[in-house]
Amino acid sequence: MHILITGAAGMIGRKLTERLVADAVLGERVITKLTLVDIVAPARPAGFDGQVDCLAVDLANATVPAQLVATRPDVIFHFAAIVSGEAELDFDKGYLINLESTRLMFEAIRLAHQAEGYFPRVVFASSIAVFGAPFPDLIPDSFHPTPLTSYGTQKAICELLLADYTRRGSMDGIGIRLPTICIRPGAPNKAASGFFSSILREPLVGKEAVLPVPEPIRHWHASPRAAVGFMLHAATMDLACVGPRRNLCMPGLSATVAEQIEALRQIAGDKAVALIRREPDDLITRMCEGWATGFEASRAIALGFVAETSFEQIITAHIEDELGGSL
Amino acid sequence: MHILITGAAGMIGRKLTERLVADAVLGERVITKLTLVDIVAPARPAGFDGQVDCLAVDLANATVPAQLVATRPDVIFHFAAIVSGEAELDFDKGYLINLESTRLMFEAIRLAHQAEGYFPRVVFASSIAVFGAPFPDLIPDSFHPTPLTSYGTQKAICELLLADYTRRGSMDGIGIRLPTICIRPGAPNKAASGFFSSILREPLVGKEAVLPVPEPIRHWHASPRAAVGFMLHAATMDLACVGPRRNLCMPGLSATVAEQIEALRQIAGDKAVALIRREPDDLITRMCEGWATGFEASRAIALGFVAETSFEQIITAHIEDELGGSL
Repeated sequence: MHILITGAAGMIGRKLTERLVADAVLGERVITKLTLVDIVAPARPAGFDGQVDCLAVDLANATVPAQLVATRPDVIFHFAAIVSGEAELDFDKGYLINLESTRLMFEAIRLAHQAEGYFPRVVFASSIAVFGAPFPDLIPDSFHPTPLTSYGTQKAICELLLADYTRRGSMDGIGIRLPTICIRPGAPNKAASGFFSSILREPLVGKEAVLPVPEPIRHWHASPRAAVGFMLHAATMDLACVGPRRNLCMPGLSATVAEQIEALRQIAGDKAVALIRREPDDLITRMCEGWATGFEASRAIALGFVAETSFEQIITAHIEDELGGSL
Repeated sequence: MHILITGAAGMIGRKLTERLVADAVLGERVITKLTLVDIVAPARPAGFDGQVDCLAVDLANATVPAQLVATRPDVIFHFAAIVSGEAELDFDKGYLINLESTRLMFEAIRLAHQAEGYFPRVVFASSIAVFGAPFPDLIPDSFHPTPLTSYGTQKAICELLLADYTRRGSMDGIGIRLPTICIRPGAPNKAASGFFSSILREPLVGKEAVLPVPEPIRHWHASPRAAVGFMLHAATMDLACVGPRRNLCMPGLSATVAEQIEALRQIAGDKAVALIRREPDDLITRMCEGWATGFEASRAIALGFVAETSFEQIITAHIEDELGGSL
């Protein structure tokens, strides 16, 4: 089986690649080839017996998606995107990378389907950013997407295209609306949501972290490990029972910052918690107040998608996956 | 004031043009120029004192929307589209006409805004086809659009673009999700929904009409007159209070076929009703069962949009507007 991952140099792309290499199979099929693409060449994974192509490509170049589709991957994980902040700052780039490259990919698949019946599974990484405030505390699956960012708009449009191309039989698509990923590994980044991860990640290794919002702030989380699990399930599950509504809110954990901190205390003690420095930031607080706090995710749960149910689990997954299993 | 109407040769375009010419003002501003465009040149309206340009243009030609925007209309009614059946039969044409031409128009507006602060009101004709079954009997404003046609997908994508271009300040857009228009004037057409109009329109002038579905079938209706009223209100209302959710389900009348027929009887008697010939069609019946039966339209009603509240009103509007006021 041949698997293509776009955005393979990103966090989820790297985690998924690691997992696929470790498993050596997807579902019950042996993975014989991995095509890993990103705007910079993704790192070549160690320990994989099959063929690996690591390519630096620009998916917004109109010829590139067709070239990738011409290699006939059985499963396409389409993660490539610029992040919300960049898409808001650069209108043209956001629409080009986040929307046009996806459209080009789906079009290339449709033409290959028409030509010779090519019919890949396409797993698209969408986002809870398709929703914009106001919304209920627990957003139902039937809630309307009214994004308040260009990034969210681009993801919502890609979802509609995915559903239509799938409905018309050109491909077997599924859109995965990811929660905020916590704990993101690596260095602190400048995303406004970065503190959700850094207030846990940094104290776990004895470093200080800044908390810019009040502790009652509630948000919607899943670990990188859970996100990879969503992707594997999306790639292998029987989609016949999903019907034409192919974009699913993933399960996650609705938790306050206070609950995050309490879980940190349970696992790493008061000394770790003491490394969190309060530095209130009104702008970040107002942004957080406009973000979704929870989802029912009824359909995804019924379809077998699984996420963490406590922040202790999320922290434990981080310690196991990033810190060698112990503090 | 300069007004541009795309799709001006279509039914709503012609009705709106007639009304604008009759009113000679939009809101409180005198209409000095009308630019009427369609794939065939729209008819030149009689009795208008200002400038009228009637143009046959292809909006999917990348240079055309920019040329139209270069004339700096104060209000743009963007109605141009191919219908649902055609968009389903011709995938490429549907995406080109219904999506790409709209995107080109919004892009031309954005660039003109950047260059010199151009900021038109844009009224976009959307459709209840953005919704796909299953749904509740009365669909709330917060219900998710999950279209089951390419036409509905294209309209839903245009809505998202309209909201994002508006949110970013390039234009002042509003999307109007029209009910099924009943009674459509003119000859019977081949649309699956055509019978909703023809079972009233034909008997009112002594002609036979075919009813292909059972009488309990319920659907969502508004008259052409109400549709024109929606467009005028959308073009003139203060949009500051609407916020970023710029796509509105219009009010309408939820009625069964039996209620339509009873209204015909009240106005035109048993003789008219006797002209309805039952000719059950399983395919059309199944299609109807997948269509929306009603909308809450709470936001639109609160914002002052008004539709008919009985089929007697809808039939009376038809008699006044199409049949000279009497049978």
